[in-house]
Amino acid sequence: MRKSIATVSVSGTLTEKLAAIAAAGFDGVEIFENDLLACPLPPEEIRLRAADLGLTIDLYQPLRDFEAMPVPDLRRAERKFQVMERLGADMLLVCSNVSPDAVDDDELAAAQLRLLAERAAAHGIRVAYEALAWGRHVNEYLHAWRIVRLAGHPNLGVCLDSFHILSRGSDPIGIEAIPGEKIFFLQLADAPPLAMDVLQWSRHYRCFPGQGGFDVAGLTGHALNAGYTGPLSLEVFNDHFRQADAGRTSRDGMRSLIALEQALDGSAHPAAPTGFAFAELAASGAVVEVLAALGFARTGRHPTKPVELWEQGGARLLLNATGGDPALLAIGLDTPDPAKAAGHAQALLAPVLPRERERQEAALDAVAAPDGTQIFFCDATWLGDFSPAGPVAGEITRIDHVALTQPWHHFDEAALFYRGVLGLRAQESLEVADPYGLLRSKAMSAPGGAVRMVLNLAQVGTGDIARQHVALACRDVLAVARRLRARRPDLLLPIPGNYYDDLSARYDADPALRELRELGVLYDRDEHGEFLHLYTVTLGRVFFEIVQRTGGYQGYGAVNAPIRLAVQRAGGH
Amino acid sequence: MRKSIATVSVSGTLTEKLAAIAAAGFDGVEIFENDLLACPLPPEEIRLRAADLGLTIDLYQPLRDFEAMPVPDLRRAERKFQVMERLGADMLLVCSNVSPDAVDDDELAAAQLRLLAERAAAHGIRVAYEALAWGRHVNEYLHAWRIVRLAGHPNLGVCLDSFHILSRGSDPIGIEAIPGEKIFFLQLADAPPLAMDVLQWSRHYRCFPGQGGFDVAGLTGHALNAGYTGPLSLEVFNDHFRQADAGRTSRDGMRSLIALEQALDGSAHPAAPTGFAFAELAASGAVVEVLAALGFARTGRHPTKPVELWEQGGARLLLNATGGDPALLAIGLDTPDPAKAAGHAQALLAPVLPRERERQEAALDAVAAPDGTQIFFCDATWLGDFSPAGPVAGEITRIDHVALTQPWHHFDEAALFYRGVLGLRAQESLEVADPYGLLRSKAMSAPGGAVRMVLNLAQVGTGDIARQHVALACRDVLAVARRLRARRPDLLLPIPGNYYDDLSARYDADPALRELRELGVLYDRDEHGEFLHLYTVTLGRVFFEIVQRTGGYQGYGAVNAPIRLAVQRAGGH
Repeated sequence: MRKSIATVSVSGTLTEKLAAIAAAGFDGVEIFENDLLACPLPPEEIRLRAADLGLTIDLYQPLRDFEAMPVPDLRRAERKFQVMERLGADMLLVCSNVSPDAVDDDELAAAQLRLLAERAAAHGIRVAYEALAWGRHVNEYLHAWRIVRLAGHPNLGVCLDSFHILSRGSDPIGIEAIPGEKIFFLQLADAPPLAMDVLQWSRHYRCFPGQGGFDVAGLTGHALNAGYTGPLSLEVFNDHFRQADAGRTSRDGMRSLIALEQALDGSAHPAAPTGFAFAELAASGAVVEVLAALGFARTGRHPTKPVELWEQGGARLLLNATGGDPALLAIGLDTPDPAKAAGHAQALLAPVLPRERERQEAALDAVAAPDGTQIFFCDATWLGDFSPAGPVAGEITRIDHVALTQPWHHFDEAALFYRGVLGLRAQESLEVADPYGLLRSKAMSAPGGAVRMVLNLAQVGTGDIARQHVALACRDVLAVARRLRARRPDLLLPIPGNYYDDLSARYDADPALRELRELGVLYDRDEHGEFLHLYTVTLGRVFFEIVQRTGGYQGYGAVNAPIRLAVQRAGGH
Repeated sequence: MRKSIATVSVSGTLTEKLAAIAAAGFDGVEIFENDLLACPLPPEEIRLRAADLGLTIDLYQPLRDFEAMPVPDLRRAERKFQVMERLGADMLLVCSNVSPDAVDDDELAAAQLRLLAERAAAHGIRVAYEALAWGRHVNEYLHAWRIVRLAGHPNLGVCLDSFHILSRGSDPIGIEAIPGEKIFFLQLADAPPLAMDVLQWSRHYRCFPGQGGFDVAGLTGHALNAGYTGPLSLEVFNDHFRQADAGRTSRDGMRSLIALEQALDGSAHPAAPTGFAFAELAASGAVVEVLAALGFARTGRHPTKPVELWEQGGARLLLNATGGDPALLAIGLDTPDPAKAAGHAQALLAPVLPRERERQEAALDAVAAPDGTQIFFCDATWLGDFSPAGPVAGEITRIDHVALTQPWHHFDEAALFYRGVLGLRAQESLEVADPYGLLRSKAMSAPGGAVRMVLNLAQVGTGDIARQHVALACRDVLAVARRLRARRPDLLLPIPGNYYDDLSARYDADPALRELRELGVLYDRDEHGEFLHLYTVTLGRVFFEIVQRTGGYQGYGAVNAPIRLAVQRAGGH
């Protein structure tokens, strides 16, 4: 299907927007009127510029407060038709009237829209009428369709906007009652679930399909069932997108439409990951000390690169001695069909990383995540390169999850990346208090928790390093803590005694509580089970968490995150 | 009255918060439980720390979900009493239950709260019960009072929170029905008018009294009428405050309480400004060229400083040759009693600037605004220093307004500063689209528009210079534009032709429209009158606007601001 996007969705001047939109591979654009007004180029030159970039101008928008008025302002509309002719745009969006002067009279609205369509026809222009969610009298898409049908003019149809329909909780199945040829245009936007004034919600918090909580693909399916053949067009008002790089936002939008098409095809993720193969860290002596104290052992070396394999149970860490402060460089994912997974990622515009391998080494397909972390798709062969010495027994069994700090303005992009590219599903999304600001946090996981990721976003003012962490699952976190306490107590993050006083107030006095306090182990529970965990100090950007889940606990101990953050900040840990 | 503040209101770790709060002159604090839990110091040491800083611990908060439960959790409460004894806090906030397990039964709630108060009494502790605006069954302050009266225990009273009361639209006059000795605590917060979920509104958008839209002083007056004698205590959850400097936020909070006390005294601003005496700019040859092209003339020099006076009509600009890129350094305000105005500013914690003067020069009282701009309180004597040559006739008559970009996180502080220190009143508040983000903008003015200020706040990502501008009122903006066009057309900000196409669509074709287009003059109207204006290019950080108001137009041409911003950004103007 043709793909389009409204210029309001991305940052910059109109010419910058057009260049970024074309570079992302869109077929067309909606020109948002304010972008045109502020542009020094006359409409004729914008038309040429778009054509040179391979973009059609699919819609000019919006004409406001036109219909159902005591006297319709046809003179204003005529001036807009003139601009559209110069621009080469042949469809005008008319959004439902919000003026207090508007009359609640469908017959009047239809008659005036019919008149408008007649005038438009003289210019070769069609008019798409849209119900704004906050329209004064017309705010339901089926109401807009009723008026369009009443008007009965071939140059008048409806424009459907997923935000306006789904934000009101309207059932989109009614779209199938509209003949496809009368659906002139389809605007797509998602949004997070927020309980707020719908106009503010729409103007500031829209996001691309797949980034919010609406079933935009389902709505699109109804439009296709009805026979809609026009473009899928993104129209997003978002405070972050206004500030972010236009090229990156445009690619993100294109990715959302590709993922939406995949969802429409009913195609499941072709090769979802089944576990963590490894996590690769820029290493230092301090990292080696932590791993040794945790019971990891070095079991292999890469034949050609300065990379060591450290193992314990099923947890595998690669230590890369390429220099730099300790940081998470890459994640390896066990993948049934790495080539297929990489192809899928590439189709979703994930930046493919160049393969570097010597003869006889395993070929690894990899892409870059939004924060620059490398994601490797692995089958069983990669381990052979390291000629591992054999299993290392211990309490630690596997990588439980990896937490990454996302770049400012790109949180929604990251959520869509992990959903689309890796097939992860969003779990909980919450805010956590840091002493110097709030952290936004979203957990995503593969079915059954085989792969869990936590995406964090720090408020811009917090000024903290972008911490990352690797959480390692174990059978007995108290045993791990005792071992660490005995060998290297300096590596344990100290937990305030006040935390344990509160824990003893919240839960029945448990004999284990005294030991939790002594060892600096934290505690949470949900309706499924319990969660015990400890943190190491931070090395460079990275720290480790050791976690023990019992009875099907689903969370990540978020209730304890503010304690950790305060200790990390206050003590320089 | 004693002044207190909740630790959640400011940024940092608990010890940083206490230090900042004490430095701002508060008498006491409310300890927010999460701040305590994350603090490595035991309660006894926090008690000592607070005492050393001269702070009493007025409240420990909150105990949640206690009353009206099938089984009240007295064990948890006992643990909290123990912590409070160690902390030296003798009042506990209990907020109304939000649990789905809570029972809608006032008798039960009262009985359980009576039991809690009995237990508290054994520790010398009193319990203040507060209705959360989103409480499950108790969400009105008079409902909380009904339950407290029913319980009838001397150690149980109500806590009143202005946000919880006013956000629901409850009438605070009912406070006067509560005996003063049963109002155990008064928490004060303001908030901007937002149509959103009240819990999110409360957790993210509260602000200090005088910064939002609630009549917090009026509510406080009712509590005082009732006989309340406890502290005025600020409790603000605000995303910006969480990130801003704790010392600055604490001083801002103290200023809000001082201003609130002044409002309670019914004292009007003692010396509100009656006009702009001058605007002082760091000057360059380019600034001189613009002023000369606009018809200004140099009419005087300062006897001892490298400062020139330029005049036209009643508009006076000081050009300071102390170096640096052109920028607005200071604003002089005509003030009936400068010493009184300066004293009032100082009482509101405005930083007083040192006076520098030679013998026989006018003494000028000045304070620093939140963005660092110097504000001078002037009587007629200052002009004498410059021995001005005499009046300069021209189209320009006076300074209409000055627009300043405020520092990130300090927009609310600035609004309170201009309101309290200068006695300005908030006019319109709006958002303006810049190509790279939204600008928040608030206009403030003295009665009759004698002094108008526009405070702007750029989204952090926009990366623009912090532009300032001086708007000059004139009798005939077209004449000014013609003069500028003839002499120095390069100094006029070019306005896109598309803007005028739209203007001609919005308004009846006017013969003047052609001239507006030729001259780059913009147009707006409101129900009172019309507004014509033009902009110069930006010099350093500063540009000039020439405005003509007719028929009582009240605004600032905000509808045209996105056009200006786009041209400034795109063309490097």
